[in-house]
Amino acid sequence: MSRNLKLTLAYDGTDFNGWQIQPDQPTVQGTLEECVRRITGEDVLPQGSGRTDAGVHALGQVASFALESPIPERGLRIALNDTLPESIRILSVEKVGSAFHARHCAKAKTYQYRIFRGDVCPPFVARYAFHDPYPMNEEAILRATESIVGTHDFTSFAAADPDRSTRIAAAEAADCDDEIATAPSNVRTIHSAQWARGPDELTFAVRGDGFLHHMVRNLVGTLLQVGRGSVGVGDIARVLESRNRSAAGPTAAARGLYLVSVEY
Amino acid sequence: MSRNLKLTLAYDGTDFNGWQIQPDQPTVQGTLEECVRRITGEDVLPQGSGRTDAGVHALGQVASFALESPIPERGLRIALNDTLPESIRILSVEKVGSAFHARHCAKAKTYQYRIFRGDVCPPFVARYAFHDPYPMNEEAILRATESIVGTHDFTSFAAADPDRSTRIAAAEAADCDDEIATAPSNVRTIHSAQWARGPDELTFAVRGDGFLHHMVRNLVGTLLQVGRGSVGVGDIARVLESRNRSAAGPTAAARGLYLVSVEY
Repeated sequence: MSRNLKLTLAYDGTDFNGWQIQPDQPTVQGTLEECVRRITGEDVLPQGSGRTDAGVHALGQVASFALESPIPERGLRIALNDTLPESIRILSVEKVGSAFHARHCAKAKTYQYRIFRGDVCPPFVARYAFHDPYPMNEEAILRATESIVGTHDFTSFAAADPDRSTRIAAAEAADCDDEIATAPSNVRTIHSAQWARGPDELTFAVRGDGFLHHMVRNLVGTLLQVGRGSVGVGDIARVLESRNRSAAGPTAAARGLYLVSVEY
Repeated sequence: MSRNLKLTLAYDGTDFNGWQIQPDQPTVQGTLEECVRRITGEDVLPQGSGRTDAGVHALGQVASFALESPIPERGLRIALNDTLPESIRILSVEKVGSAFHARHCAKAKTYQYRIFRGDVCPPFVARYAFHDPYPMNEEAILRATESIVGTHDFTSFAAADPDRSTRIAAAEAADCDDEIATAPSNVRTIHSAQWARGPDELTFAVRGDGFLHHMVRNLVGTLLQVGRGSVGVGDIARVLESRNRSAAGPTAAARGLYLVSVEY
């Protein structure tokens, strides 16, 4: 009788080619899978709440998988932290009902984006924040950010994906419950979006019911253009309405992004 | 007419095989030398205030060298930060008198040692602190630390160096002003040594007129044994008097150590 487990984990994404397992590439999912196999002898594929891209960090990613091994939850957490590289840490292991699935059951997620504003970025911060020391109208960024809160079609802020319709058709044909098939729309609700100012840092925190691929980084890249004056405060609504990726700004660097937490 | 320059720099020591240049190894000195050459075309060997070992970090290492190129100090700082890997940052470049030498003129140095005490070490801290979550009598550590302040022969806390007498003789024969020749004694003065307690961290800060090889890490390794109870609070004076490396504790991990600043 297998047990369904929910893992909460933090990782430094710098040296991983993202969450999703890939042949011959260091990935968080692949590393976790390998360590579960070494500890229990079982082949499991931990399902993440979502994929994080190469270089993106996590403070509280959630993964789930079913395990036959009777190893207690606390013992598994300790054994995994002894086995995993120190760039991945298991914060908790909990037994959950068989219906729990880290991605399908996620109700909301919070992301954070760190921008280092000082002249010289300390070497200890370089892996963990985007360095942008240039003049910026922070007041304009704050005002523009209000436009993204609420329910909108975020197509303009989603990674352009030429294969999307093909993948939706394939998922539908396979009767797969992949999020692309169950939620083919790009409408998402952002519950809150805020900036915090530290002595040398600007931090963006955004909580929503779901995020499209690159969505947070594209929002940040566009809001930084507002800060520069190349996009007007009032233009964000127009960018959203255009439903066109090319209307928005560039994708901000992966290193500044953190998946903070997932709510169920 | 060359100009003598004083550079203050910070580095993340994780990916370097220490300060000192070595063939086919990434070192801070070697990387800095290479970048100065790329910018100015000149071959210089930046002299550090002292060597830091592999994995040891710096918040304010100081280096000096003479340069023929007329590039302004500010321009050199910017060009170096554009050229160096982001794990090394030049904080300042100053013109100094021709007599200035980063090592010979150093009057005092401050080091810091970070110990992460929480149960699970966050991946973002792992490179930058020693993880020690085990029970520790911190009060005993504080009291034992008082014994090291002042002027003592620190042979017990210096890296055992079987070649030392040979090197002193060679330096003397060569009339070299290497510190081994000018200060062959292991007597040093510690001006202050303090511990600070954060929510999940213990930080040791020590300021002295000079430090022997591995001295801060051996002091920390021994003080942690006091915290464990395997060395008594009153035993530190005895360890100092023995002038014997084997009387002291192990060398604490490099990753927790920072060269904070050098005074001239």
